[in-house]
Amino acid sequence: MSILRGNAIVGQSGGPTAAINATLSGVIRGALADENIQTLYGAYNGVEGMLAGTYCNLTELFSDKEKLKTLETTPAAALGSCRKKLPKRDGSDPGADKVYETLFAFFRSLDIRYFFYIGGNDSMDTVAKLTAYASEHDYEMRIMGVPKTIDNDVMGTDHTPGYGSAAKFIAVSMAEMLRDCAVYTVKAVTIVEIMGRDAGWLTAAAALSRFSGMEPDLIYLPERVFDMEAFFEDVQAALTRHPNVVVAVSEGIRLADGRYVCETGDVAVDVFGHKALSGTGKVLELAVKARLGCKVRSVELNILQRCAAHVASLTDIRESVAVGAAAVEAAVSGVSGKMMSIVRVSDDPYRTEPGCEDIDKIANQVREVPASFINERGNGITEEGVRYLMPLIEGESYPAYRNGLPVFLSLK
Amino acid sequence: MSILRGNAIVGQSGGPTAAINATLSGVIRGALADENIQTLYGAYNGVEGMLAGTYCNLTELFSDKEKLKTLETTPAAALGSCRKKLPKRDGSDPGADKVYETLFAFFRSLDIRYFFYIGGNDSMDTVAKLTAYASEHDYEMRIMGVPKTIDNDVMGTDHTPGYGSAAKFIAVSMAEMLRDCAVYTVKAVTIVEIMGRDAGWLTAAAALSRFSGMEPDLIYLPERVFDMEAFFEDVQAALTRHPNVVVAVSEGIRLADGRYVCETGDVAVDVFGHKALSGTGKVLELAVKARLGCKVRSVELNILQRCAAHVASLTDIRESVAVGAAAVEAAVSGVSGKMMSIVRVSDDPYRTEPGCEDIDKIANQVREVPASFINERGNGITEEGVRYLMPLIEGESYPAYRNGLPVFLSLK
Repeated sequence: MSILRGNAIVGQSGGPTAAINATLSGVIRGALADENIQTLYGAYNGVEGMLAGTYCNLTELFSDKEKLKTLETTPAAALGSCRKKLPKRDGSDPGADKVYETLFAFFRSLDIRYFFYIGGNDSMDTVAKLTAYASEHDYEMRIMGVPKTIDNDVMGTDHTPGYGSAAKFIAVSMAEMLRDCAVYTVKAVTIVEIMGRDAGWLTAAAALSRFSGMEPDLIYLPERVFDMEAFFEDVQAALTRHPNVVVAVSEGIRLADGRYVCETGDVAVDVFGHKALSGTGKVLELAVKARLGCKVRSVELNILQRCAAHVASLTDIRESVAVGAAAVEAAVSGVSGKMMSIVRVSDDPYRTEPGCEDIDKIANQVREVPASFINERGNGITEEGVRYLMPLIEGESYPAYRNGLPVFLSLK
Repeated sequence: MSILRGNAIVGQSGGPTAAINATLSGVIRGALADENIQTLYGAYNGVEGMLAGTYCNLTELFSDKEKLKTLETTPAAALGSCRKKLPKRDGSDPGADKVYETLFAFFRSLDIRYFFYIGGNDSMDTVAKLTAYASEHDYEMRIMGVPKTIDNDVMGTDHTPGYGSAAKFIAVSMAEMLRDCAVYTVKAVTIVEIMGRDAGWLTAAAALSRFSGMEPDLIYLPERVFDMEAFFEDVQAALTRHPNVVVAVSEGIRLADGRYVCETGDVAVDVFGHKALSGTGKVLELAVKARLGCKVRSVELNILQRCAAHVASLTDIRESVAVGAAAVEAAVSGVSGKMMSIVRVSDDPYRTEPGCEDIDKIANQVREVPASFINERGNGITEEGVRYLMPLIEGESYPAYRNGLPVFLSLK
């Protein structure tokens, strides 16, 4: 192991989660504790900030470590985020060299020797490209990706930081909505649309509401082809059991012909005649109303799923901090160009530890919900699936409150 | 004061709230503590249960008072609810007599001398009608209404049990969504649709997110005429201040011609050609997209607003319990045919006490947000409004958790 001393920078990228700042806190904790890192900077809006030279000094900002606790319960990227993908250097983009030169001039000017990028697939791509460039241009630097996504669809990790909190919000909200729906005796169908375009992890979490005494009648994930006739049959059958039927459905479900359900026929037309797609839940609401004639409504959990820090998973927040700190440790020990992961060491008792994975094994792949987690009919989650999911939402992480509102931290 | 001994029954009616079971718990606590009430029964699904003879024995069920705590943090009507309105006895409904005879036969059979009805306007109407019938038919009985509605639009009370918890969920969610929206640098407008058909109380609560560091740029209530051109101007102006504009809007806003915004042009057409109205937020989303051309999305908070027990207002839960217990005290002391209220005794420190109001002064009226709570331009909440709202969301009421999910109580 070679010792590398210098400064470090951390950035956040991609969609917000309730735990992405917990990982940032982990990186800060790791950097503050390590003598090889003099100053940790924070890039505003990920790579955008490194290109524009907009950043802050996190070592200074967090000299008071109490503030880290507040950061850990603050949702959405405190440093700001971006969706920028770095250009390829294969000659296809004439501006590519300029981008890398700007970035590395920035790194040199601040003597940045460590870069931690907290983000999704695009961020891992950035990690791989910068690692290659640094190595080719003899700039000694260690670069680590730390995954975050509520979608839980990243390969090479048992689960992703951020997923547990989103899953907890979904399960808790579902438990509450099930009780809300159960108060009347009139037949009614409630369709809850949950995020997840390509993988059904978030929708699967709806099954966990059973531990609160009630669970959705039907759960549909994008891993299975969605059949409208089978769906009508399922709803009809559920209505014979009790008057209030609740369905959890992933926004990404598709028909046998490959079309997303949300693309099929439901069109919102405004006063100017513009058309716009509406959601999967709305399409199913109209379809059930037309076919079964009963009262139907749809609910879209929407962006709250990814930012509900007020009821985050304590397990998720702790693991997110740990994986951030472990990224610093790994880099200082010589690792570079890799993605941090969470390894499930044991199921009972549930225990995980941080790991490292090669990025090229992970990039551009989607980790779907395994077939063994979905029941035969494709409308529910198996016991095996529930056993995998359960520990990820264990424990409650609450922010501190002042004047009835959560105390959140702003870094910009 | 005349002493009246016998049994009591309690029912829940109307839409769910996160605090309606706290009021039920208050009634149970009050009845258990009073020697004039032998047994307290719970009617399933309000008046429907009293007509069908479906009920439970709450005195027995809550011999273990620990369970009352769980009841207080369980959302939605634990006894079930109904939307049934009792018929008029003015000869217009030939079946009316039969309904009242059935109800009073039920009361006599169980020696019911006290009836507590937790509900909205329709429930207060039921209280008035039953009080009149009992008095005309010489059946000694005391009947009390206890208000509950997230809408806060009932006359004769400073605020309604249930409102504070819904307001807290809205303010907290808004604080989180504001951070979620702020992470990118691209211009984007987010429109959050909040419940409230006739009064803007819930939407006004969005302003409280300021205590968490950020607040919506614009807030529109149904108390003011909604002008589409003024709205475009407001959004345009906000976009010059920062890229991420967030708008809170009540579902019930209307144009100058009286039409609800959600009725104007936005039509969802399904595969079968059926039309359906979509929400106010969706209509505005399409309108802003068409006019300003920037990224726009709409979020509907939907039924979670009324059942999010996982982050209820402790002030609301405590007051809801107190008002339920006070209803029993009042009835035992001789009061009948009235609605319980919450009287704000002092602003600083905030202090309330339960009161009693004549139902005929309250029924069929809507308490709107006062003009002094809305700014001149009609797109924000004044300091006076914020001062009224603030104490109602103070304190956090959390349910107990097991296996990562809230522990809720089922009575049916």
